[in-house]
Amino acid sequence: MGRPTVLLLLLTFLTPGAAIRVPPAMKALSSLRWSTSFTSRGTVAKKYSINYIEQKVNHFGFDADETFKQRYLIADEYWKKNGGSILFYTGNEGDITWFCNNTGFMWDVAAQLKAMLVFAEHRYYGESLPFGNKSFTDSRHLDFLTSEQALADFAVLIKHLKKTIPGAKNQPVIAIGGSYGGMLAAWFRMKYPHIVVGALAASAPIWHFGNLVPCGVFMEIVTKDFKRSGPNCSETIRSSWDAINRFARTGAGLRWLSESLGLCTALTNTQDVQNLKAWISETWINLAMVDYPYESDFLQPLPAWPIKVVCQYLKNPSVSDAQLLQNIFQALNVYYNYSGQANCLNISETTTSSLGTQGWSYQACTEMVMPFCTNGIDDMFEPHSWNLREFSEDCFKQWGVRPRPAWIITMYGGKNISSHTNIIFSNGELDPWSGGGVTKDITDTLVAITIPEGAHHLDLRARNAFDPTTVLLARSLEVRHMKQWIRDFYANQRKKH
Amino acid sequence: MGRPTVLLLLLTFLTPGAAIRVPPAMKALSSLRWSTSFTSRGTVAKKYSINYIEQKVNHFGFDADETFKQRYLIADEYWKKNGGSILFYTGNEGDITWFCNNTGFMWDVAAQLKAMLVFAEHRYYGESLPFGNKSFTDSRHLDFLTSEQALADFAVLIKHLKKTIPGAKNQPVIAIGGSYGGMLAAWFRMKYPHIVVGALAASAPIWHFGNLVPCGVFMEIVTKDFKRSGPNCSETIRSSWDAINRFARTGAGLRWLSESLGLCTALTNTQDVQNLKAWISETWINLAMVDYPYESDFLQPLPAWPIKVVCQYLKNPSVSDAQLLQNIFQALNVYYNYSGQANCLNISETTTSSLGTQGWSYQACTEMVMPFCTNGIDDMFEPHSWNLREFSEDCFKQWGVRPRPAWIITMYGGKNISSHTNIIFSNGELDPWSGGGVTKDITDTLVAITIPEGAHHLDLRARNAFDPTTVLLARSLEVRHMKQWIRDFYANQRKKH
Repeated sequence: MGRPTVLLLLLTFLTPGAAIRVPPAMKALSSLRWSTSFTSRGTVAKKYSINYIEQKVNHFGFDADETFKQRYLIADEYWKKNGGSILFYTGNEGDITWFCNNTGFMWDVAAQLKAMLVFAEHRYYGESLPFGNKSFTDSRHLDFLTSEQALADFAVLIKHLKKTIPGAKNQPVIAIGGSYGGMLAAWFRMKYPHIVVGALAASAPIWHFGNLVPCGVFMEIVTKDFKRSGPNCSETIRSSWDAINRFARTGAGLRWLSESLGLCTALTNTQDVQNLKAWISETWINLAMVDYPYESDFLQPLPAWPIKVVCQYLKNPSVSDAQLLQNIFQALNVYYNYSGQANCLNISETTTSSLGTQGWSYQACTEMVMPFCTNGIDDMFEPHSWNLREFSEDCFKQWGVRPRPAWIITMYGGKNISSHTNIIFSNGELDPWSGGGVTKDITDTLVAITIPEGAHHLDLRARNAFDPTTVLLARSLEVRHMKQWIRDFYANQRKKH
Repeated sequence: MGRPTVLLLLLTFLTPGAAIRVPPAMKALSSLRWSTSFTSRGTVAKKYSINYIEQKVNHFGFDADETFKQRYLIADEYWKKNGGSILFYTGNEGDITWFCNNTGFMWDVAAQLKAMLVFAEHRYYGESLPFGNKSFTDSRHLDFLTSEQALADFAVLIKHLKKTIPGAKNQPVIAIGGSYGGMLAAWFRMKYPHIVVGALAASAPIWHFGNLVPCGVFMEIVTKDFKRSGPNCSETIRSSWDAINRFARTGAGLRWLSESLGLCTALTNTQDVQNLKAWISETWINLAMVDYPYESDFLQPLPAWPIKVVCQYLKNPSVSDAQLLQNIFQALNVYYNYSGQANCLNISETTTSSLGTQGWSYQACTEMVMPFCTNGIDDMFEPHSWNLREFSEDCFKQWGVRPRPAWIITMYGGKNISSHTNIIFSNGELDPWSGGGVTKDITDTLVAITIPEGAHHLDLRARNAFDPTTVLLARSLEVRHMKQWIRDFYANQRKKH
């Protein structure tokens, strides 16, 4: 595959957070292990139990009857058996403890909703590997990594919890998720409305498939974020690609690039240069996703409004190539070396290891076929068109499978979802994923909440003194809807008896 | 497995009909073959095209990328591109041409709904065999025989039709099915509401799973049908089992049984006697399903109200064993030899070969786990309890798979389906499957229609001069709902533009 597709294959969702987790306390409590974790502020303890459920590897076939252990976390400090609720995080492409620690919103609202918090790990991520360390060896072992299987896991898990936890049986369950997890939350409500009374789908680009939205919308929003964060910022980045290309023509230029940037491994050929540009592009993308209004320590520590900080180095697109690239490199250091502790930069890494990049790469090659493109005009990147045929070839080479780009729309309805109810779609306008999200109300009970100053699911993060008013408003609307769903559930239950 | 379970394993749905199909006319018309068939009355011609679509063998996994040809029939004589609709029969466990010819209701309403009729064959039945004649060889080849895969086939097919048939794109599709096909129609609307605007689920026992209804309800309704059809009728049948058992104790008794009944193969051992009783039980069950108010020629020709005819032979439970059994055998002959052409009776057959008994046996052993039981008191059968463990063992022996009795409820919601809309559940009160059906309105748009004089989906059959008023009323209500769905669809469409 040409680099553009590789670049886009690497594109995974990010669910940045502000928590550092200390090792589990390992205090045995019945059959559960308890794990305590602390946020970076060191003050709010998150206490949850770590649990496992045996799940069928294949819910949709009976030939293989194997099971695997799916991990899930439960926090019930604020749960009330009388009139309470269950908030169920539909885990996405990563370690569930990481999502648990980075979805402070659920912890913040637990008391007022008298809610038990459940965080369910997505199969093939974290510890929930259907075939252990063989899970990614080939397409046969990967055959059960689909959104449908993940939703079935969630459904089976909730039925299990209701059956086994005294007091849980007659309580409403609300699905909550962000990013791909937000898509899962929405789809879970659509497909299993008998199991969850509603869903909060934060930053869920459920329309980033097929022709539902233009393929360029994602990178245009990334570009806008840089444009608004400093004069000439996006123009400087747009100019940088040709500057790199010009340096890359000679061995001396490659050496200069490697040294100026402090790369761990020197660039030696054209492919390396393509990788460098892909890595830089992903950095800008990641910054757009985590452009939060306060200091956060996702992956590497970042300052508040990190794009503004980055853009301070990117004010002039008209300087010499060398000067421009040195400015770019300083900007990159904001993302990769804010703490000043990196000795060199590794262009094969952009995100936390808590995210399962292998798994997501497979999912992107099968069901989650999201078209991306750039034209260099409406965005600040080198032009790349979306080429499904090439993408398919690359997927076949990498995983031995071919994408089915129409399937997700057939399965989950595309834009034709108005017959469903009780789903909140929240999106931050700074978040490039909002381009594929639902940003207008569809019906009275399929509502869109937009957060002008929000990046990738800011609303799901723990409350913060620097939260903009718009995210406070969004959260309070979300809680209002959830309370309504809970009231409706109990009212219906009373009607039955 | 003990016979009771075998008996129940054999229990398949029946979709009896009144049509004799002449061989296809084979007149080529573009790429379609046209097939013309005639009802028994010889007057109403059914003209449809036979078509095939390439479907993924596995919609829910990407390792195997094979496809197979799914057959579907289209009749568009009454279809209008302007303001029309598409009635989509969600094929069940048999040859789709048989269902097509036995769902006269769709043909009868096509003109007033300006409807295209589509009949989609269920995978693993009729010609739609994913692995040709290897489809049933082992659990590996059978792994893709599930309701979820079948629904996915339907969804993909409808998307394909809308894309390829000019004028179909912006038309509402209504799912229609009877029996297991009715379950599929209801589930299709629940899971793919973006693809069908509503569903008519006729005689669909969607609650005949787990503990949703008592396991004895089915056989109780069979018994009631015989009780109401003649004095002492059900009591006579109840007495017959012990009479058979007493005869079966000796070789002479076995010979007498075999000869008196005119069996093709003589009974020689206890297992044969169990098989005989299972076969007789199934005959009574089948009669309860096809107890139609007019002469019909399903399997074997049957008189109007066949149970009444049968019961004329079963008026006295207190005669000698020999006399009682001779009466039973005369009654059986109503079902097996109404035309007088059978030379002997074969106890390994009870239903038309158009039904795929192998496929249904596998489905009953995996997803479609329907508990049945008898107690000999509330019903006229020998007592048999429902034994899941034993059932599971037998399934494993027969197919190498084990049933997952909770799965269907987890997947499709059990009794908790009130968030769905636009489904008509119709049931005949004579139909034993009505015990597992929805017979009371759930909401304004999830409505139940009951037909007091109706057997198994009488409403889906072609109109007949002897139709009781209640089925005429049911059909007119069904049409009224369907017209409303169509109107709503077009009103919404206008609103969008």
